[in-house]
Amino acid sequence: MSHRLTTDMLLPMFQNDVLACLDDGAVLDVQGLRLAFSTDTYTVDPIFFPGGDIGDLAVNGTVNDLAMCGANPLYLSVGLILEEGLAMEALKRVLQSMKRAAAAAGVTIVTGDTKVVPKGAADRLFINTSGIGLLHPHIRISGSRARPGDRIILSGTMADHGVTILTQREKLHFDSPVKSDSAPLNHMVKKMFMASRDIHVLRDPTRGGVGTALNEIAIQSQVGIHIEEDKIPIAKEVSGICELLGFDPLYLANEGKLLAFVKPDHADRVLAAVKRDSFGKEACIIGEVVADHPKKVVMKTRIGGSRIVDMLAGEQLPRIC
Amino acid sequence: MSHRLTTDMLLPMFQNDVLACLDDGAVLDVQGLRLAFSTDTYTVDPIFFPGGDIGDLAVNGTVNDLAMCGANPLYLSVGLILEEGLAMEALKRVLQSMKRAAAAAGVTIVTGDTKVVPKGAADRLFINTSGIGLLHPHIRISGSRARPGDRIILSGTMADHGVTILTQREKLHFDSPVKSDSAPLNHMVKKMFMASRDIHVLRDPTRGGVGTALNEIAIQSQVGIHIEEDKIPIAKEVSGICELLGFDPLYLANEGKLLAFVKPDHADRVLAAVKRDSFGKEACIIGEVVADHPKKVVMKTRIGGSRIVDMLAGEQLPRIC
Repeated sequence: MSHRLTTDMLLPMFQNDVLACLDDGAVLDVQGLRLAFSTDTYTVDPIFFPGGDIGDLAVNGTVNDLAMCGANPLYLSVGLILEEGLAMEALKRVLQSMKRAAAAAGVTIVTGDTKVVPKGAADRLFINTSGIGLLHPHIRISGSRARPGDRIILSGTMADHGVTILTQREKLHFDSPVKSDSAPLNHMVKKMFMASRDIHVLRDPTRGGVGTALNEIAIQSQVGIHIEEDKIPIAKEVSGICELLGFDPLYLANEGKLLAFVKPDHADRVLAAVKRDSFGKEACIIGEVVADHPKKVVMKTRIGGSRIVDMLAGEQLPRIC
Repeated sequence: MSHRLTTDMLLPMFQNDVLACLDDGAVLDVQGLRLAFSTDTYTVDPIFFPGGDIGDLAVNGTVNDLAMCGANPLYLSVGLILEEGLAMEALKRVLQSMKRAAAAAGVTIVTGDTKVVPKGAADRLFINTSGIGLLHPHIRISGSRARPGDRIILSGTMADHGVTILTQREKLHFDSPVKSDSAPLNHMVKKMFMASRDIHVLRDPTRGGVGTALNEIAIQSQVGIHIEEDKIPIAKEVSGICELLGFDPLYLANEGKLLAFVKPDHADRVLAAVKRDSFGKEACIIGEVVADHPKKVVMKTRIGGSRIVDMLAGEQLPRIC
């Protein structure tokens, strides 16, 4: 629905070349300087959850969107919507978490705005972060640059954030509690660029998960994508909860993972660079780009069959980030 | 309350030199390029009102914040929070209004994000806009640069937006309907800079109105401010409604007006430049900066007395912008 709202209504309305790229952020040329500019609004419910809260999510999310443009994130803005009656302690905790996350990512929060709305007009706390980054020189990253042969790297286990929010919201308590993977990915991306400039696509599979992100890239690049289920890292507990509740982890959100499409002969060295980052230890090559079945994602299943991984049909879970 | 939240909690939390300037946006040096970066969230209730809607307000607001930094606004991001069940027609109308406002201001919307929250978790539609502008060369604008002798220009009538929202919300219908002054000010600022570089402060008196903006500047610059009530332009109907309802128009929001502090011998030519802009026809010099009573705003009243114009005490009206 969100995808259709974007393509059917928002894009035609505001049509311009930059917006039409449909990447995680816009890449702008300002007097010869290549800047990335990105925005994201966070409405996650609950606002505190194992592994993070709405504050670090809001900082990491925009840091990652900039990093996915191939940029070094520099500056963030913060726009707060506070519901009247929100506990000051909760607000303080969220702001402290934003401060820590900004320090960890190495970005500076330079401007902000706060709006307080009457009780009932918003649910506790919404945060918008926008960010500016500077593009690494000679880097060209876009969802439209995937080429047959490209290897696809996933930087770690999938669905951790999505499963965490779902179980928290449904008040489900499991013996082995899972936690959100909320993390900044800009340091990882920097290491990757040092290993190779032949990275074609970067995408953080947030809302809609790995399945949606791969479909978007297949469409943007007009290529087919082939992945193998048994190569996709997933935590045992996450997989167990998904089976139990009937969720497909391919469509659940990640908040500290990236997909990278890399020229085949550079894939191993980029994978090694990802693994050197503290958030990339479990990275794997999960598949490759193919000339067959353009605009379709096909997965070889664990039992050896083949399954089309569709764009998520129906409604996505709201307030997952 | 909003001012105290900012100074007591947000600033200490995120302390850095740029944020501490407390101007409408941040001025950044990115590899020798001077950029302005600003963010604002719009929660105005009602979302449609005479003279505008939440859409053009959100575009004009961030355009103006950038212009008040002395920048030429270039790019905007848009972050939407939509309440489930919001009429598609209403959304479309708001987006079309944003599109028109962006075209009028000459800015491009380059990136965006949409979050849909369940019914009751937000009130219809909130919009965050963030923006990037390029600073006019040799321009140094800041709320801390007001100097004794500076003349203070107000670009037109005050309190139009505030009175419009108040009367709409209270369902008060008057014979001569007032309307919001929502307008882009960047073209006006450009004309002003062509007339003089000795403009020290620019500020759009939005939330809190002219009274709050002048107090903020007096504090930032550690100067006194003297204004004359009978020189402040105000529409007859607005003044009448304020008297009737007991509002002080000095504290009501404007969304298409600016205050400029200008070196005395350049004031007339800057005033003439403001008046040449279609949104500045009723501009006046309303007072000057004085060495006396630092950090205080004193107004010579219409009947010849003197009154201290305080920082607004108590709660500001929520959801005015």
